Amino acid sequence: MHAAIITLTTDFGHWDHYVATMKGVMLTICPQAVLIDISHAVRPQAVRQAAHLLASAAPFFPPGTVHVAVIDPGVGTERRAVAIGTARACYVGPDNGVFSLVLERESVQWAVHLDNPEYHLAEVSATFHGRDIFAPAAAYLASGADPSQVGDSLAPSELHRLEILQTYEEGAGPWQAYVLHIDRFGNLITNFRVPDPDATLSVRVGGEYIGHVSRTFADVAVGELVAYVGSSGLLEVAVRQGSAAEALGSDLGSPVHVAERG
Amino acid sequence: MHAAIITLTTDFGHWDHYVATMKGVMLTICPQAVLIDISHAVRPQAVRQAAHLLASAAPFFPPGTVHVAVIDPGVGTERRAVAIGTARACYVGPDNGVFSLVLERESVQWAVHLDNPEYHLAEVSATFHGRDIFAPAAAYLASGADPSQVGDSLAPSELHRLEILQTYEEGAGPWQAYVLHIDRFGNLITNFRVPDPDATLSVRVGGEYIGHVSRTFADVAVGELVAYVGSSGLLEVAVRQGSAAEALGSDLGSPVHVAERG
Amino acid sequence: MHAAIITLTTDFGHWDHYVATMKGVMLTICPQAVLIDISHAVRPQAVRQAAHLLASAAPFFPPGTVHVAVIDPGVGTERRAVAIGTARACYVGPDNGVFSLVLERESVQWAVHLDNPEYHLAEVSATFHGRDIFAPAAAYLASGADPSQVGDSLAPSELHRLEILQTYEEGAGPWQAYVLHIDRFGNLITNFRVPDPDATLSVRVGGEYIGHVSRTFADVAVGELVAYVGSSGLLEVAVRQGSAAEALGSDLGSPVHVAERG
Repeated sequence: MHAAIITLTTDFGHWDHYVATMKGVMLTICPQAVLIDISHAVRPQAVRQAAHLLASAAPFFPPGTVHVAVIDPGVGTERRAVAIGTARACYVGPDNGVFSLVLERESVQWAVHLDNPEYHLAEVSATFHGRDIFAPAAAYLASGADPSQVGDSLAPSELHRLEILQTYEEGAGPWQAYVLHIDRFGNLITNFRVPDPDATLSVRVGGEYIGHVSRTFADVAVGELVAYVGSSGLLEVAVRQGSAAEALGSDLGSPVHVAERG
Repeated sequence: MHAAIITLTTDFGHWDHYVATMKGVMLTICPQAVLIDISHAVRPQAVRQAAHLLASAAPFFPPGTVHVAVIDPGVGTERRAVAIGTARACYVGPDNGVFSLVLERESVQWAVHLDNPEYHLAEVSATFHGRDIFAPAAAYLASGADPSQVGDSLAPSELHRLEILQTYEEGAGPWQAYVLHIDRFGNLITNFRVPDPDATLSVRVGGEYIGHVSRTFADVAVGELVAYVGSSGLLEVAVRQGSAAEALGSDLGSPVHVAERG
Repeated sequence: MHAAIITLTTDFGHWDHYVATMKGVMLTICPQAVLIDISHAVRPQAVRQAAHLLASAAPFFPPGTVHVAVIDPGVGTERRAVAIGTARACYVGPDNGVFSLVLERESVQWAVHLDNPEYHLAEVSATFHGRDIFAPAAAYLASGADPSQVGDSLAPSELHRLEILQTYEEGAGPWQAYVLHIDRFGNLITNFRVPDPDATLSVRVGGEYIGHVSRTFADVAVGELVAYVGSSGLLEVAVRQGSAAEALGSDLGSPVHVAERG
């Protein structure tokens, strides 16, 4: 039997028990589950950043993986809890747009509202749906439960989606993009997608001008600013062997101006 | 065969090899072990915080789970290394009170002093009992070793216990509680337990007065202070979509005054 | 069947998707793999620190474990990607010296250049060889692939090695050592190895003088500086229940003077 893989993406951090508590719930329901952390360091309530991290990692997991995302500023309010199935994977979390980027590439085969209390923990708290609703749903689905049992069916059009990415198109610029994620090295990952390897672009960010987009950050000298298309297909800005976030004073959401060179 | 689950709670942090080294030892002895981190970000030597994190997560793990806790200010001194069995689980760590909270809810069926060198690594260092004593003991117990082989029996009354929690009782206040844990969001988790959902309480913390305890932090506006009973049954103080620890200048151990409203 | 263990040591941090993406690739190729993090908090591009963390943990893993290290300042340049087999384990990563310390103790049985594109992901990016080359190689090797298929054979002498450690030898001092790693507690782990338990040494670091090397940090009072030989056999400097790094203003690479006492 192929093990059931469940990934977790949250803004819970690593210093609390929250993630482990979810894992305990999952292993109680689905003892053979293989649990993989994507990130628990999403900026609190940064749904777009979480959407990016999940969409970057998910395509590299085996078919049938269940991905749980708990970035949930709306917990305790009326936002819906959902599970979504595609040809590749299953997604479980709040219906707040956190799955928008994976659903750009994968079409929805089924979606359900996680409203069947038999698939929740016996007591549902007001503050910790990760433990009480999302973890059990993911574990039941990973164990082979039929989605129609877990909750009422939703039409794909009922799912909440966010416009997160902008995509380069010849002659359509200039573009006002923004910083979607800052990685551990201080590299800025923008929401600007560059599918065309021949695009000739310039970038303005944090008061600095970068005259072209390189193939790799090894193309510049140590300490220099460089713009390049990263491993996720998004425009990134780095300082070679340094931190672009620090050098440019950039944070999540900071503007990044992109233009075609004449 | 049900996989043997072992959880780890330490103050070793995530940037060292210590946790991985313990896992290597465990997998060498018990190859089928499923290893789950509860937290490695316990404040150095904060036994009470560790007791809280462990007690919050442990009840959600399957019966038979082995929980290892290595928060061990006394390593290298004469404090005892112990393993403790209850109807639900097995606990392995230093006998310094770190299991006080789980043992409030689960009664001790057996306890042993980990003094049999055949169940230690061949060489025991003065500074790393997590690797040399606790990891092997947990792995042997998870593999089905008889506790009586692992060390000499202890009476439950010989175990070191700490008084950590205070519990609300009608008419018994006011109470001087304290901050037991600060979570990733800056929420303050106190050592004050509120089993009665109808308790009408006020809270004074960091110079601020909160006139009542809410059902959820969604009950207040963004940026406002709120007191509520969290998912562990403990009084918590939060700033909605902000950090209470920062707003109130609170740290582990900071006082929290609780009173009944007249 | 004994599960295939793969460990990961990187400087990717915990807040990105990079580590999870590597794990997804590994589980796709080798579904039975057990994935264990050694550390992802290596200082960016600190090859020597990574070498130390890996060499500290690796000996405690079962024989046959595959250890992947991705600390790779040279990604995108011409540095070689390699896999190395010893009697105990298999090592996969860039050929930049990150395996120098494990190879002091284990002799090379085989080494290959990871140059067979059939064992890479279909598309190899310029910036993320962890995902595209190292993760697949580790997973194929953990699944039992023959090293000769994964790439061309290398002679052991072709591998890049760094001199990282200095070793105490009677009468050979004084020594100018340095801080190789700082652990979570602020303890300084130096590159100075002390195999002789009877060596009588003094240490000068951060303007402070420590007149002898103790058996354990419990030998001094709370708040006092202490030098001792740690669980890895290296000289360490600590403040009991405090941070030596903070007290001494030390960082990775800071000098530590060691001398024999007359």
